[in-house]
Order: sequence, then structure tokens, then C-alpha cells
Amino acid sequence: MLASIAHRVPPRGYGPWEQVASTLTEGLVARGHEVTLFATADSLTAAHLHAEAPAGYEEDATVDAKVSEGLHIAACFERAGQFDVISNQFDFLPLVFSRLVTTPVVTTVHGFSSERILPVYRAYDDVTHYVAISDADRHPDLTYAATIHHGIDVDAFSPGAGDGGYLLFLGRIHPDKGTATAIEVARRAGLPLVIAGVVHDEEYHRREVLPHVDGEHVRYVGPVGPDQRDRLLGGAVALLHLIDFDEPFGLSVVESMAAGTPVVAYRRGSMPELVTPGSTGFLVDDVPGAVTAVVAAAALDRGACRREARARFAADRMVADYERLFARVVAEQRGRPRRTAVANLAR
Amino acid sequence: MLASIAHRVPPRGYGPWEQVASTLTEGLVARGHEVTLFATADSLTAAHLHAEAPAGYEEDATVDAKVSEGLHIAACFERAGQFDVISNQFDFLPLVFSRLVTTPVVTTVHGFSSERILPVYRAYDDVTHYVAISDADRHPDLTYAATIHHGIDVDAFSPGAGDGGYLLFLGRIHPDKGTATAIEVARRAGLPLVIAGVVHDEEYHRREVLPHVDGEHVRYVGPVGPDQRDRLLGGAVALLHLIDFDEPFGLSVVESMAAGTPVVAYRRGSMPELVTPGSTGFLVDDVPGAVTAVVAAAALDRGACRREARARFAADRMVADYERLFARVVAEQRGRPRRTAVANLAR
Repeated sequence: MLASIAHRVPPRGYGPWEQVASTLTEGLVARGHEVTLFATADSLTAAHLHAEAPAGYEEDATVDAKVSEGLHIAACFERAGQFDVISNQFDFLPLVFSRLVTTPVVTTVHGFSSERILPVYRAYDDVTHYVAISDADRHPDLTYAATIHHGIDVDAFSPGAGDGGYLLFLGRIHPDKGTATAIEVARRAGLPLVIAGVVHDEEYHRREVLPHVDGEHVRYVGPVGPDQRDRLLGGAVALLHLIDFDEPFGLSVVESMAAGTPVVAYRRGSMPELVTPGSTGFLVDDVPGAVTAVVAAAALDRGACRREARARFAADRMVADYERLFARVVAEQRGRPRRTAVANLAR
Repeated sequence: MLASIAHRVPPRGYGPWEQVASTLTEGLVARGHEVTLFATADSLTAAHLHAEAPAGYEEDATVDAKVSEGLHIAACFERAGQFDVISNQFDFLPLVFSRLVTTPVVTTVHGFSSERILPVYRAYDDVTHYVAISDADRHPDLTYAATIHHGIDVDAFSPGAGDGGYLLFLGRIHPDKGTATAIEVARRAGLPLVIAGVVHDEEYHRREVLPHVDGEHVRYVGPVGPDQRDRLLGGAVALLHLIDFDEPFGLSVVESMAAGTPVVAYRRGSMPELVTPGSTGFLVDDVPGAVTAVVAAAALDRGACRREARARFAADRMVADYERLFARVVAEQRGRPRRTAVANLAR
């Protein structure tokens, strides 16, 4: 399991890639697989831990990210012969190592940060097995082995009563995430809004968010840990997820459902795959639609919302999906004439 | 030959790493070796050119540097089996691929940009063969196969008369390069100063350089191409190289000598290895020392200066040094029991 090393695995706060790597690793170990997790030295796991970096490069200023990433990825590929399969949860850089080993590599595409990174995905399309994290995020130029929605530990979220009388924004403060739109919708719906998350766009935060924060109608509580997140989700009438980009997946969306809190989301990216209208929330297209949906969401059955979250987005389901894919990839590999790494073939 | 891809090979303007890769590649081809140059697609070479990137990432905003570098390096290592030796002129990133192939890798260390990149050099000390570009730049933690001073095409520089009556600063405008110190020395020596080079530190340029530029006592001519550089060097009484860091090598220093123009340099880094006091220039420790040296430099034999440049820093000498090292590395490799790439060994 090749994790991202921006943060510890699991992350202390923000870090969706590291969170998914952790959930998948622990799930595979629990099912009896032997797993080596390549991650930072301060990571917590029941798997074998191999660490090159003492800590995440976002958390340790003495570390050069490029050096740290290079050593980390190489450590995994230099040991490729020990593994039946490499699960790459790191992003694109490991791809360029994948032709140098014979072990199959399954690469989870956590999203395309920019069109400029597409060339490397295209170049390794014939070598690696891509996993999309939603059908919406599949790129027409790539071949995918599967779509696997993320799973979460549903039991880490308490069933909430939604009795706090407020709406919730949970995520990075960034135009993509629609923080300002959430403020507008809450105002029109006549409900207070609580905003939780790291500031990812300072200028936007200062210009579009802070002027509305009055501690009463709009509260900003900063980044939150698991306990506070659980309380905030449990008390919220609904989660506002009025995104301004085609989000490949939204962990906070399924976390909200796990707490029983319906989600009012813009119909973009993966949202139609995650939100079941009338059950776990509503899909809307504009601010008036969102205001109407907030009222309807308050009337939804929170127990049913949580049950659906467990059925569709539990960690177990994700782990089982990956387990099946890994087994298939390994079987395909064994069925082939023994491939030698290109570097040796060419001589 | 794995070149850096910040710029074309050879570079149009600034780009010392690409310049060295070019000189070495063309020299090896001229000596009858079969060379594949991995560089940008717009590169010019008599070798086989393999390009992944259309242009240098410093010259093409549509390119993601990380993607471009990854594809570029991987292309070389995926073909490693075709080569007797890989000459890595790229910096540290190729190191992390080097255990995955059996072809020996000779890595020229063009300087340590920061202590934070040392860990990766240490981690591959047992695998790669390091070349220092000066004895001064050898790091005590690393094992070196050789020190090889850069060489240049001496005939690309005309023998200059030094009759322009000015001193010359040639290099990046940056505190490390001592642009402001050169201004001070020229003023005290009573000679005009011509400054040529790219601005690498905007703030320094605005604060310490521009206020002195009056078009008469101090002229700033910007970055210069080969022709203008040749004219500027030829007319200069001396080159001022009053560096404020331990420069691993100074291409402009040997270029100046090739034009017959003596160099007044601070006694730091590689300077004592490059400048022969009383012959190709002077080594000094402070501003008064530099002022005195300027007067003495004007009296040096410019023909002798150029002859020494040719004897010590001609491209042929550098190419021969690398040729010997490559031959030794290849012979050592052949003498060993056939090593298999680690990835396959471990299984």
C-alpha cells in the first residue's frame, strides 16, 4: 500500500488520500491479508509499516517534498518483488516507476488536479490498472479496471438528532467548495450556518466568507477533529455541499449521511452517485432550489439516511471491492507468460 | 545522456547543466561513441535524441514540470538495458530509479541547492557513481568516483584585446554572485562596470543594483547570447567574480579565461581550482584586495591566459575524463557477477 506522505496515515486533520489509504489498509489486514504500508514514520497501522520520511511534508518544514516523495516511492518499487500487487494511493508519480517492475500496480485516481497531469496517466494507461473513485471522474482517454466509491468507518459517526437548528458547511474554504453559496442559502433559508474546515484560498476567505461571520448567523469554527466533527454533523439540519466544480468524490458527503444528516448538493461531478434524492438528501441546481431542499431535508428520516450510508459507503464494502479487484489483477498476471521488467528485456 | 529539461540542449541563454550535457554529448559522439540524448524535443544534437517533453518547462507554461520530469527520466530508465552506462546530468531525481535497473549510473552532482536534498544522495551513495564538478564541492558524506571540471568550447570565444576599458560582471543577478560587490570594486578602481546576466533575485536587483545603473559608470545589458557575450568578454579588462557562496564551479570564469580576460575572484568554493593567481587572474578576500588585483590583472598576458584555459578547461579534456570514467565503470560492472535488478531479486 503506497500512501501519500503529505500527512500521517491516518491524517490528524485534513488528508482525504491518507484517510482512504488507512481505511483500505486496516480493512485488508482485518481480512487476513499481509500488507506493507509505505507511509510516514508517525503513521498508525496494524500492517507492516515501511517509512522513509519521519513525518508528512506538509507537517515538517525540514523535509524537502520532492526528495521525500522520491525516496518513499522508490522504497516501495525496490521491494516490488515481495508483493503480489501494489496499491498506489499516491497520485501520478509512482506511475513512472511501474514499467521497471513486474508486480502489477493498481492506481487509484483521486482526481485530476489539472489537465496538465493527464499526459502521464495516458502514458501508463497500458501498464497500470486505474481505479476511478466515481463514474463521473472517469476520463475518456483512460482505461479503468473498476470504479470503487470510497468507504468510511460508519460507526465512527454517532447517529445525530439534527436538533442544533443550523446548517453545516464542512470542507476546505475554497470557491470550488461553494462556501459563499452556502452562506447565501442559509441566509435565505433563515437558518444559521456553521462553517468548519481549513482555509485553502486565503483571498476568498477574506473577501467572501469572513465579512459574513458574525458568530450568530454565520459561525466559522476552523478545522475540526473527529469528535467536534461528529458533534457538528449530528446537530445539523442538513449539510450544504454546493460545489462549483466536478468533485470526483466527497468524503464529507458520506460522513454526513453516516451521522444521519441529509445532504443538499449541487448536481455536479460525483454528487448524483452519492446522494439519493429524497432519502439521503437532494440534488439541486441553484440557490432557490437549495433553499427549498433545505426545508424538505429537515423532514427526511435520519435513521434511513444512516442505514443507506452504511449499505453503500461502509469501509467493508470498499475493502471488499478492492479485494476482488486485486485478486482479479493478480490472477490475470499469473495467467500471462512471465513478464520481465522492461529494463532487462531490452538488452 | 540524461539531461535536465528546464531548457533546451544546448540552452539558448542561461542553462549551465544543459550546456554541460550538450558539450559532453557532442564530444562523445565526435569520439565515435553511440549516444542517446534524453532531452527536450527542440534540442540540437548529433546523438540520437529521445524526447518526451516538447520544450523546456522553464520555456513552456503549458507543461507541468513534475509530469514532464517523471516521463523524461522514466523513458531513460525503461530503456536502460540498451545502454552500457547512463550519464545523469539531471540532478537527484534519477537516483531513485537507479536500483531498478542493472545499467550503471554515473551522476554528476552540479551542486547542492540545499542541505535538504542530501538524504537522497546519501541513500544512493552505494549504487551510483558520483562525479564532483570541483574538489571543493565534494561532500564528506558521499563517495566520489572522480572530480571532473567542466570543459567548454574554447574556440567559441575570440581572443580579446581587453581594450574596452571596463570591468565585467557576467552571471545571475543574485547576492550569491556578488553583483553589488562588483559595483563597489569598479567604483573604487575608477573603471566602468558592465553587468550582463538574468535577474535571479528581483528584490536585490531593485535595491542593490539598479540605483547604481547610470549607463556610464555602471551599465546593465541584461541576459546576453553567445555573440554579445564574446564581444563583452573580449573588451573587458577583467571579469569580477566576487561570489558570496561556495560556488561549485563557475562556467563564466573559464569562459572569461578563454577570451583571454583575467578573473578577479573571491577565494571561495571552486575558485582556487579554477583561477591560477598571476596567470589567469587573482584570488582575493575583500574589496581592497579586489581593487588592487584589478590593476594587476590589466598587466597580465592575455594570450597566456587563453592558453591555460585551453589546456585545462577545453571540452576535449572534459570529454576524455568522462570517457575514462565511463570505461572504468563499465569494466567494473562486467567484472562483477551479473546483478539482477533489485525488483526481481527480492522475489
